[in-house]
Amino acid sequence: MRRRTMLASGPALAAAALASPALAQGNPAIRWRLVTGYPRSIDVLFGVIDNFARAVSEATDGKFAIQTFAGGEIVPALQAVDAVANGTVEMAHTSSYYYLGKNPMYAPFTGLPFLMNARQHNAWLYFGGGNALADAFYATQGLVAFPAGNSGAQMGGWFRKEINGLADLQGLKFRVAGLVGSIYAKLGVVPQLIAPGDSYPALERGTIDAADWVGPHDDEKLGFVRVAPYYYYPGFMESSVVAHVFINKEHWDALPSAYKSIVRTAAMAANLEMVARYDAVNPPALRRLIGAGAKLRVFNPEIISACYRAANEVYAEIGTRSPEFTRVLAHMQAFRDEQMPWWQISEYAADGVNIGIRGRNRTP
Amino acid sequence: MRRRTMLASGPALAAAALASPALAQGNPAIRWRLVTGYPRSIDVLFGVIDNFARAVSEATDGKFAIQTFAGGEIVPALQAVDAVANGTVEMAHTSSYYYLGKNPMYAPFTGLPFLMNARQHNAWLYFGGGNALADAFYATQGLVAFPAGNSGAQMGGWFRKEINGLADLQGLKFRVAGLVGSIYAKLGVVPQLIAPGDSYPALERGTIDAADWVGPHDDEKLGFVRVAPYYYYPGFMESSVVAHVFINKEHWDALPSAYKSIVRTAAMAANLEMVARYDAVNPPALRRLIGAGAKLRVFNPEIISACYRAANEVYAEIGTRSPEFTRVLAHMQAFRDEQMPWWQISEYAADGVNIGIRGRNRTP
Repeated sequence: MRRRTMLASGPALAAAALASPALAQGNPAIRWRLVTGYPRSIDVLFGVIDNFARAVSEATDGKFAIQTFAGGEIVPALQAVDAVANGTVEMAHTSSYYYLGKNPMYAPFTGLPFLMNARQHNAWLYFGGGNALADAFYATQGLVAFPAGNSGAQMGGWFRKEINGLADLQGLKFRVAGLVGSIYAKLGVVPQLIAPGDSYPALERGTIDAADWVGPHDDEKLGFVRVAPYYYYPGFMESSVVAHVFINKEHWDALPSAYKSIVRTAAMAANLEMVARYDAVNPPALRRLIGAGAKLRVFNPEIISACYRAANEVYAEIGTRSPEFTRVLAHMQAFRDEQMPWWQISEYAADGVNIGIRGRNRTP
Repeated sequence: MRRRTMLASGPALAAAALASPALAQGNPAIRWRLVTGYPRSIDVLFGVIDNFARAVSEATDGKFAIQTFAGGEIVPALQAVDAVANGTVEMAHTSSYYYLGKNPMYAPFTGLPFLMNARQHNAWLYFGGGNALADAFYATQGLVAFPAGNSGAQMGGWFRKEINGLADLQGLKFRVAGLVGSIYAKLGVVPQLIAPGDSYPALERGTIDAADWVGPHDDEKLGFVRVAPYYYYPGFMESSVVAHVFINKEHWDALPSAYKSIVRTAAMAANLEMVARYDAVNPPALRRLIGAGAKLRVFNPEIISACYRAANEVYAEIGTRSPEFTRVLAHMQAFRDEQMPWWQISEYAADGVNIGIRGRNRTP
């Protein structure tokens, strides 16, 4: 059925009358530009998106070529999605939630604090109705989007001093972005919106007290361990952070069916690839950071509970402006509530065994 | 660079001299048969492999068509890989470890007890050297293989009576396959090799005392809850179970580069899709099973520790026949040992927060 639909519409129509080997002649040579929301130093994301572009090129014998650009090369990093929406470029790879200032609906498909982990998030997106909700919203923005990567659970940030309770958050100048910043602000934190590269000198001078970035692999390059050695876990407000491929909707609609299918499949592969890469590189980076003086600290449960209450306040406030956000949040929460009893007895319990076994197996 | 390499070699060479739109003419129309190691009732796996075949067809404008068959339709379920190796069919989708009787090296790439979870396993396969080790082994068998699915952590099985300690395992007739069966046998269990469909009557008559299958979604269809209601968790010996796509090596080598790339990418997407589907369908199935009378029980740590010691004995015995197995096992263990300190403070700790928050959030 899918095949018939394709043959009966658009540029493939002429090709349908020809013999099979000539069919693919209907597929045009296309060059697209893909801008990203990050510098090339974020090598895991760049590796993934370069592989994505290569997969599309290889699948089409080089006819569908996608050139990738770092943030700022042709479009400022935080305007990547705008550039796609207005047709300046055809594609972007970035985190949707950077754009929640335009519309809060840009946030939930990336992930929200206190919801799900990467696997649960994927289950919701692909098989729980999440992507269908995303498609409906992104269409209103002139966009088509596919999940194409996940960082997995991030870390909670680097702090110059230990944070033992809520009192230590009062007036704390913390480089932390987006919703997480808004949630911390309810507890007296003063969120600082500065570029990651400027965080190191700011921490060194004491202009800021703490900085949140991604996880061990990316954090290591910025050198935070030398100026703010208390490395807090878990990244309880960033347990799943999706990167999407965004495509200008008019350009997407004009693609041949084969190219659409190739992009969709390559994005799904990229989604797996990014989390697998992060899972491979974070453990040795954590080991090196500890060797370099990082002091691992776990967040006080009092802080986690206060953030949870603050998150619900922030969600309620957003809901007053965007009933659509409230509906999607409720949809995610219902899915999460069904997930957790299963997760607790399956993955979480099995992880506990494998973590514990390793401990028992260790040479003392 | 990759593109140049491709154009300069093999069947694409002639095409390189032609204009761009004609390039794909070099790609032949191909019909392949893919046999699986399971019945169509295992609908998650079938959904995934049908989507895999559709993705390959769509990407090639229908020129590369893959027809899928259930186990037994044209090849017996447990001979799917043999049929690929000897060229009877071109492709299979099944669990490699079913073939450990031929060679123990068929086991580790599927997953081994007390090693990793699905995400860690993917990190090892794609970015920790696992797939390279797999490629080298499967090539000796005339096969090319790609990971193309994962069940995630399975359950521990259905038992007619509670299992409170090691004494309860003595003489227990347990439908459990492969390595897990060999490990349990060291503790006095008598593994029973019967088809899943025959397990229900055997449990009802008391011919067997327990049966292990997959997880809630697949288990529910077999009705075990009515005859063996004690449902044990975690599936600590099956924390990650990969399904591979197997391809006859000669047929693979003859494929055009574009088709190879398409298959590789579609397999990676299938890998994500299968675990996302299981993650979506298992939670409601667990809820229904509990409603139908399933009594959830956690394995006694004494049993888990004894299984761990028994697993190491089994691994050592296999190693006397296959030094190659020992080398791959050591490679996996080293990767696992590096993974766990990171996993414990990131995903495991963040999961603990999200599981706990839900509890606190519940209406009493």
